[in-house]
Amino acid sequence: MAFQAQVITCKAAVAWEPNKPLVIEDVQVAPPQAGEVRIKILFTALCHTDAYTWSGKLTSRICFVHCSTHLHAALLSMLLPNLVQDPEGLFPCILGHEAAGIVESIGEGVTEVQPGDHVIPCYQAECRECKFCKSGKTNLCGKVRAATGVGVMMNDRKSRFSINGTPIYHFMGTSTFSQYTVVHDVSVAKIDPKAPLEKVCLLGCGVPTGLGAVWNTAKVESGSIVAVFGLGTVGLAVAEGAKAAGASRIIGIDIDSKKFDTAKNFGVTEFVNPKDHDKPIQQVIVDLTDGGVDYSFECIGNVTVMRAALECCHKGWGTSVIVGVAASGQEISTRPFQLVTGRVWKGTAFGGFKSRSQVPWLVEKYMKKEIKVDEYITHNLTLGEINEAFHLMHEGGCLRCVLAVHT
Amino acid sequence: MAFQAQVITCKAAVAWEPNKPLVIEDVQVAPPQAGEVRIKILFTALCHTDAYTWSGKLTSRICFVHCSTHLHAALLSMLLPNLVQDPEGLFPCILGHEAAGIVESIGEGVTEVQPGDHVIPCYQAECRECKFCKSGKTNLCGKVRAATGVGVMMNDRKSRFSINGTPIYHFMGTSTFSQYTVVHDVSVAKIDPKAPLEKVCLLGCGVPTGLGAVWNTAKVESGSIVAVFGLGTVGLAVAEGAKAAGASRIIGIDIDSKKFDTAKNFGVTEFVNPKDHDKPIQQVIVDLTDGGVDYSFECIGNVTVMRAALECCHKGWGTSVIVGVAASGQEISTRPFQLVTGRVWKGTAFGGFKSRSQVPWLVEKYMKKEIKVDEYITHNLTLGEINEAFHLMHEGGCLRCVLAVHT
Repeated sequence: MAFQAQVITCKAAVAWEPNKPLVIEDVQVAPPQAGEVRIKILFTALCHTDAYTWSGKLTSRICFVHCSTHLHAALLSMLLPNLVQDPEGLFPCILGHEAAGIVESIGEGVTEVQPGDHVIPCYQAECRECKFCKSGKTNLCGKVRAATGVGVMMNDRKSRFSINGTPIYHFMGTSTFSQYTVVHDVSVAKIDPKAPLEKVCLLGCGVPTGLGAVWNTAKVESGSIVAVFGLGTVGLAVAEGAKAAGASRIIGIDIDSKKFDTAKNFGVTEFVNPKDHDKPIQQVIVDLTDGGVDYSFECIGNVTVMRAALECCHKGWGTSVIVGVAASGQEISTRPFQLVTGRVWKGTAFGGFKSRSQVPWLVEKYMKKEIKVDEYITHNLTLGEINEAFHLMHEGGCLRCVLAVHT
Repeated sequence: MAFQAQVITCKAAVAWEPNKPLVIEDVQVAPPQAGEVRIKILFTALCHTDAYTWSGKLTSRICFVHCSTHLHAALLSMLLPNLVQDPEGLFPCILGHEAAGIVESIGEGVTEVQPGDHVIPCYQAECRECKFCKSGKTNLCGKVRAATGVGVMMNDRKSRFSINGTPIYHFMGTSTFSQYTVVHDVSVAKIDPKAPLEKVCLLGCGVPTGLGAVWNTAKVESGSIVAVFGLGTVGLAVAEGAKAAGASRIIGIDIDSKKFDTAKNFGVTEFVNPKDHDKPIQQVIVDLTDGGVDYSFECIGNVTVMRAALECCHKGWGTSVIVGVAASGQEISTRPFQLVTGRVWKGTAFGGFKSRSQVPWLVEKYMKKEIKVDEYITHNLTLGEINEAFHLMHEGGCLRCVLAVHT
């Protein structure tokens, strides 16, 4: 049964070229090959990596970071002019990487999911076999990266999407802006079928990134003083994670003071708007905290802020985690003395969570009301309204917009 | 008895001004005040921080790092023109910070050492009471830093050294280029009286810095692949520490191939001379190690090498420790993606060792032949030959030169 799947023609939002609105098209989705899973996507959220691709903007924002670990190389090269690559032939593609759905069919050798299983496709795979997975030190599985990095599947180095014979490339190994998608089996997290897919789709990217940055990468302890730079979805998830970890103070820093009221609901205890200060923001934070914070998180993707986030850390032990990723070609810098005197500079991708193992656990935590998800969803639209949804993302009031894919 | 000490007149090597040879002078050393200890220095080694001061050179080298945590601010400002400070009045001073001696007298309230105790003066204090000491996370005690940073003692913000009434400033809270010195009691490590002072004086700086960078800061595990940039005393101590930790490969990198034979004796298993390669050295190391090393250590003080040391680390977990410190004004930089994909950038000062608690433990390890010390001593001279000793430091064949202070 598993091998009788046929080509499905369905709706998908196709990015024909960067900097142009997505177009809803009838797309042919090939059956899953060995080790592949075809998923009926029910709900997908938009994340900033998608937005960059859509907008053609070259600056990077909050969500860029976790996405960019496996960011579609060709898209990246378009977004980021310093990356010299030939982008021809890698567009058109289907974006989207924060979603939930139901397994429609499976390819040969797929054992861990069956048709009908509720799943979250994960841009960060977990094969449990590669050097990375076996290390016990990282979630950055390398099994399918060579393919997902260039918009194809491992088996035949080809795409499963096409329109009348024209291949449409995958994106980040997920391509969730489609009613059906094909992903590698190592990229599928099977979740509790009772979980509301229209909510838990968010557990495919931004929320885990923020929570995991605190729990896995920084390992914030009870009583810690925490600084969060950037109060978008990822920054708020950092605050939530820090509150859950028992942080005594959670200082939110953002240049948009309108975000502060919302941020309180996620655990932020005090606010700093750099625009209100003449001093460098790191000095403001150091002064506020008797020498600096124990942990800081950069959730914007601005290299100047990354430096400030490091330098606002306490001498001797302060740890700064880069969650946002800057545009290509930009570099972070600091005086080495900052590190010699005990500060630690780290980064995180998907919050250090092992996707197949831990996304289901996050879903359980949500079901037990131990983590927020609903509160990040500020808008609900349909796949057909995707361009409007992208516009919303650039407005301050939007955290996450969830699209119903099959309406 | 403890409070009857008198002024002692003895020989000391005085730095009257930067960039001029030291001068052996008759110096008056005042009695220790409350919380202070006067030490008869028997043996002192030279370290690169001292050498910079002597030479007036503005580049930094291996030992600069650990010293610079408490580096005499005024000397630093002379060495490093980008640091805008007024150096007037902070010279003349007495350099030296890697030494061993015997307590001559103690000030009021000093309880942990008595006259006759064998000790190592420590530029990194350990008070066990301050925020830093109590944190359990760092060795960077802050108790006397405000004084040692500007060449005086905490009690009265004055120096205990003078020549016919002219104050001579302290250096790093140690000033061991003198037959007698006065230090804060929180800066004195009491050691086994059976330990040979002419050897264990080295445990005041460079050797612990290298060992501790591996054991305390990086926490290298058995089987790790390690890269050491710079094969001076600190780099060799890193190699020794890595070997003791069970590292499977210890790659030594140095532009002076003559250092390689010696390095083998300290645990280096393979050598790379960047001059032998056209590719960036980080790429050479990545290629040699199937993706990068688990741990790297920069023991030179060159910001370009610091970047290479980070970037030769393995994606997902590689940790780079900055042990050398660059000249003031220089900055480290990298693409943030290096950290987002799992590399960690740290630094170390005195190897993370808590000085009063752990220097005696290091002495014990030396007595049990568990760590090398003798092997780092390539030259022995007297205090009167100190300028010659500084010249030796700049020659490739010199690791440590130990001066007999009372001959």
